[in-house]
Amino acid sequence: MAKYCIGIDLGGTFIKFCLLGETGEATGFFQLPTPNEGGPDAVIQQMVGGAERLLKTNDVERGDILGVGIGSPGPLDLEAGVVRDMPNLPGFSNVPIRDSVGEALDMPAVLENDANAAAFGEHLCGAGEGLGDMVLLTLGTGVGGGIVIDGRVLHGAHGMGAELGHMIIVPDGEQCNCGQRGCVEKYCSASNLAQYAMEQVSQRGTGSVLAEVMQAKGSLEARDVQEALAVGDSLAGELWDRTMYYLALACVNICRIFDPDEVVLAGGMTKAGDHLIEPIRRHVSELNWSMSKPLTKIAIARLGNDAGVIGAAGVAMQEFQDSTANS
Amino acid sequence: MAKYCIGIDLGGTFIKFCLLGETGEATGFFQLPTPNEGGPDAVIQQMVGGAERLLKTNDVERGDILGVGIGSPGPLDLEAGVVRDMPNLPGFSNVPIRDSVGEALDMPAVLENDANAAAFGEHLCGAGEGLGDMVLLTLGTGVGGGIVIDGRVLHGAHGMGAELGHMIIVPDGEQCNCGQRGCVEKYCSASNLAQYAMEQVSQRGTGSVLAEVMQAKGSLEARDVQEALAVGDSLAGELWDRTMYYLALACVNICRIFDPDEVVLAGGMTKAGDHLIEPIRRHVSELNWSMSKPLTKIAIARLGNDAGVIGAAGVAMQEFQDSTANS
Repeated sequence: MAKYCIGIDLGGTFIKFCLLGETGEATGFFQLPTPNEGGPDAVIQQMVGGAERLLKTNDVERGDILGVGIGSPGPLDLEAGVVRDMPNLPGFSNVPIRDSVGEALDMPAVLENDANAAAFGEHLCGAGEGLGDMVLLTLGTGVGGGIVIDGRVLHGAHGMGAELGHMIIVPDGEQCNCGQRGCVEKYCSASNLAQYAMEQVSQRGTGSVLAEVMQAKGSLEARDVQEALAVGDSLAGELWDRTMYYLALACVNICRIFDPDEVVLAGGMTKAGDHLIEPIRRHVSELNWSMSKPLTKIAIARLGNDAGVIGAAGVAMQEFQDSTANS
Repeated sequence: MAKYCIGIDLGGTFIKFCLLGETGEATGFFQLPTPNEGGPDAVIQQMVGGAERLLKTNDVERGDILGVGIGSPGPLDLEAGVVRDMPNLPGFSNVPIRDSVGEALDMPAVLENDANAAAFGEHLCGAGEGLGDMVLLTLGTGVGGGIVIDGRVLHGAHGMGAELGHMIIVPDGEQCNCGQRGCVEKYCSASNLAQYAMEQVSQRGTGSVLAEVMQAKGSLEARDVQEALAVGDSLAGELWDRTMYYLALACVNICRIFDPDEVVLAGGMTKAGDHLIEPIRRHVSELNWSMSKPLTKIAIARLGNDAGVIGAAGVAMQEFQDSTANS
């Protein structure tokens, strides 16, 4: 009889669900709103109810489930299975989400950080499928990271590894929200690109597409830079290329440290497609050492918002399939 | 009956040997000169002869040996067991050292990069004993790295990972021999410290202990900076602190990326002891994010020049003990 794991991806707005089969096929995707009233109990009830609905809709028996994997934003205590804090969800502090969900479903459960889950999802069924060593960079408001080595997620000794957005690449550089200076995130995130674009427009005045957009809207987003780039605005080109340079520098560091099969880029900025990949590859070639040509592939994530829920199920599959095999 | 692995550490001047027991005890250390005549054949013969002598001297039977681990400077092809090139040994190019030694001894053999072997040695019996996640930085002519995650050496997909000395920490910074700019090695190695000290003395002229030493000797080494520091020379203090700052920055990056139990520092510069550890810890505290206090211990290596040969034997133990258990 085929066995499955349940994936649950807890976000501030939606909770996503899916089933992952032992052969690596993910099915049954759906989402429910994250209750913003009723505190942790309501959220856990929604997660449990969704998992039960997932089984029913897909005609899967409880006995065919090896376990449930839960992906959640941090900070988490992975070992204890506890969400320490959850942005946007009032009262969500030190919630033992793994055991609460696991006990309600009467299934073994495992908790994973959302960025790691997304990396593992891309490794299982996405851009990193079939590769042993893969590093994910998520380019959004911040820059997140997820690392898969020899097919396993790297957590670190205190569950705080893979914070690739907080690798320092400019000594005494821009002040980051994390308290450090010169982090990758301050040079490569979508929100930093927008902020830097507004500063540059203010300094340089009129004469660019970006300046016109800023005058019309009052502010700029990363997508405005991308759109101005698409119509050939030279200021947008300069700002975009600066971001690509620092991203490439981060990629070169990832290659020196991990030498992975692939660096996978995810998040809103990857909508730029070749406008993202090509300048990064060019800068990587220029920045890279002369000991070898760049051996690590740089690719765009393939699973979009489903990476996290698939990866959460995959982490459960690895954990509970292993433990079944060893018992 | 107790089982052992043989460790062989191939260096440009000496070949080191030891036995590692299944309980983790390393014994029988000795070394032979690396033959600089007779090419690869003479080197392999010395390795084989040394291994046979190791067994005889320690009264260990061939049948009690699980396998032999060979540590070697790179570049290596780990998968093929080949030394691609060996600095200081003429004619040592594309030598299938693993199979040559393994076949001559009629034992399973494994090849490991010397920096990884040293990291694994410290993990097994040294500063990282009992810890799962450990990162080694070797501060010498260059800056080498070795990474142990969940008790296993990280190699990378193309066998070129853990090059932590070539992490870029200064965009468009000093030109490194590797072809990149701004590598850790250009700011933290002993030879860089010496070179930077000579530049600074030339620029600033007389009035420092370092200037006197340079006038007397004609050049400076890292140990001259350490000695001038010990007698309170302020220029030496400034140059040393600059090196400690960049080393700390590299350590913070290692913490963000790996979140290891410990960063272990090895190589000649660690003779400075607390003069090394204390300023690094201070800079780490200042550079570190505000999300947590520094959780990763920073320590000095304990095994000195024996780390590599112990680690080489340890890699063999892991490889051949595992394969015995699985067969």
